[in-house]
Amino acid sequence: MRLRRYASSLLILIFVIAFGLPALAADPLPSWNDGPAKRAVMDFVTRTTLEGGPDFIPVPERIATFDNDGTLWAEKPLYAQLFFALDRVRQLAPDHPEWKTQEPFASLLKGDMKGVEKGGMKALLEVVMATHAGMTTDEFEALVREWIATARHPQTKMLFTGMVYQPMLELLDYMRANGFKTFIVSGGGIEFMRPWTEKVYGVPPEQVVGSSIKTKFELRDGKPAILREAQLDFIDDKEGKPVGINLHIGRRPVAAFGNSDGDLQMLQYATAGQGARFALLVHHTDGQREFAYDKGAEKALAAAAQAGWTVVDMKKDWKTIYPAAK
Amino acid sequence: MRLRRYASSLLILIFVIAFGLPALAADPLPSWNDGPAKRAVMDFVTRTTLEGGPDFIPVPERIATFDNDGTLWAEKPLYAQLFFALDRVRQLAPDHPEWKTQEPFASLLKGDMKGVEKGGMKALLEVVMATHAGMTTDEFEALVREWIATARHPQTKMLFTGMVYQPMLELLDYMRANGFKTFIVSGGGIEFMRPWTEKVYGVPPEQVVGSSIKTKFELRDGKPAILREAQLDFIDDKEGKPVGINLHIGRRPVAAFGNSDGDLQMLQYATAGQGARFALLVHHTDGQREFAYDKGAEKALAAAAQAGWTVVDMKKDWKTIYPAAK
Repeated sequence: MRLRRYASSLLILIFVIAFGLPALAADPLPSWNDGPAKRAVMDFVTRTTLEGGPDFIPVPERIATFDNDGTLWAEKPLYAQLFFALDRVRQLAPDHPEWKTQEPFASLLKGDMKGVEKGGMKALLEVVMATHAGMTTDEFEALVREWIATARHPQTKMLFTGMVYQPMLELLDYMRANGFKTFIVSGGGIEFMRPWTEKVYGVPPEQVVGSSIKTKFELRDGKPAILREAQLDFIDDKEGKPVGINLHIGRRPVAAFGNSDGDLQMLQYATAGQGARFALLVHHTDGQREFAYDKGAEKALAAAAQAGWTVVDMKKDWKTIYPAAK
Repeated sequence: MRLRRYASSLLILIFVIAFGLPALAADPLPSWNDGPAKRAVMDFVTRTTLEGGPDFIPVPERIATFDNDGTLWAEKPLYAQLFFALDRVRQLAPDHPEWKTQEPFASLLKGDMKGVEKGGMKALLEVVMATHAGMTTDEFEALVREWIATARHPQTKMLFTGMVYQPMLELLDYMRANGFKTFIVSGGGIEFMRPWTEKVYGVPPEQVVGSSIKTKFELRDGKPAILREAQLDFIDDKEGKPVGINLHIGRRPVAAFGNSDGDLQMLQYATAGQGARFALLVHHTDGQREFAYDKGAEKALAAAAQAGWTVVDMKKDWKTIYPAAK
């Protein structure tokens, strides 16, 4: 009798090891405090992956899109890509004496970002074209790789890639472990992100959608190359996000994650599809551990309140903000 | 002794079943005759997937790009998409009495393709805009789905999706089974292909690159939609193919498959990368079972001869052309 009980315990143990581990697995989102945001996202994933359930989504349709700046990593006081442009301007300045008096470069070189902002979109584009164009894609990739490996945030002195959100890294992993294909859909430059998103987020280049400048194929000394031209191609922001998603993915996402008005249309587009849908906004409420701001997110937050989208209160919902330093 | 031999045979059998099956597996390319083309592609896959070997390619970099028209399915006497456009013109003609006299529609409605061709690219674009724009992406997808399910080739009377090349279907499967990510990179319309490439080729929408018209996000009666506009966005042909690859994939392919001069730059771009590379041209030599032609492939064939790219002689290399009817 005792032996039989022992044998059946052993059998149960074998079954648990063989099939039961996922059920007993550790919390997939350990950096999230228990609360409505964590529960909402886990509930969505559980419902949509339950075969035979009313909300089941077949694997190929499990498309999840994530904004980058402010959603996956910090965006204050400026987008990291602008620090990259600033460093490039400083680096190129010796060859451009005219920049000392020519706006927006003059302000930029003095570190006067307010002065740059005065020039608006036009000034910003000038800076991008002067620093991001006129080279091959291979050359630009090398520049980005070099910069991202060493560049540090002016206030925290951390690597920019150290200022990604640990809870969002866990969320990306969790969704992928459940058959979701994760895409980045960002207003940032597509070729600025691709050199490092695979290593940092586990998102390969072909799953990155972003803004772009025109490129041109040519044979350089008989060798094929793609040249980056000083001409805007596409802005992947606001109304541009659903357009970029349609062009690059060709499927409406079932889940979308953002933090600002630039993500509003992406969240509207994702949630307007049929079947189970999920939208989440990261609300920057933590001035202590990160940056606290609503500016530029007013419309998105209002839409979230109205539509019942999930809103992450960074201060309350996230145990940690950045990954532990390696 | 006999028992021991029996036991060890049994053990070997168990090992073969458990671990040895891949080695004993059936030919992955049964519709290919043994010959230099089949041997070249299998040699490339074997070398590049051999861990620790000199030509090993890590899985994320195993990007393979395939042209569609003439490479994965038949393109004669016209691209299937033109038959789609033709059917759309006929369908829309009652609402466009002016088409009876207005070129290129007048020629098209009379079935005079030579007359349409006289108008060149401009005429073709007019037909595309009249038939492919002015609706939402969801509406266009529905039109394509309906057409592709029933439309038949005027000569063979087969479904267009029945005129895909069986040897290439096997090749797509074979490469995917070896960790290659397969993309379509075609001059055809990106949204014309996406509704059926997953079912027919196993290539999901997000791995399809093609030509496109501009689209625009808007709220229609409060519902988000993407509208197709009568304006060209991008032509994914010739020099456009590496540009499209760079924009959509962001990685240089290690293997590229085409059949015409429209694919030349893609094959040049793929093979110019470092490490093991593979390029293949499908040469249409079989007037009996398919269509025999070199026109429009002269430059590509010359480049293949010079660079030593693999050329498939359809008549010699392929046992069958189309899949057995289901």
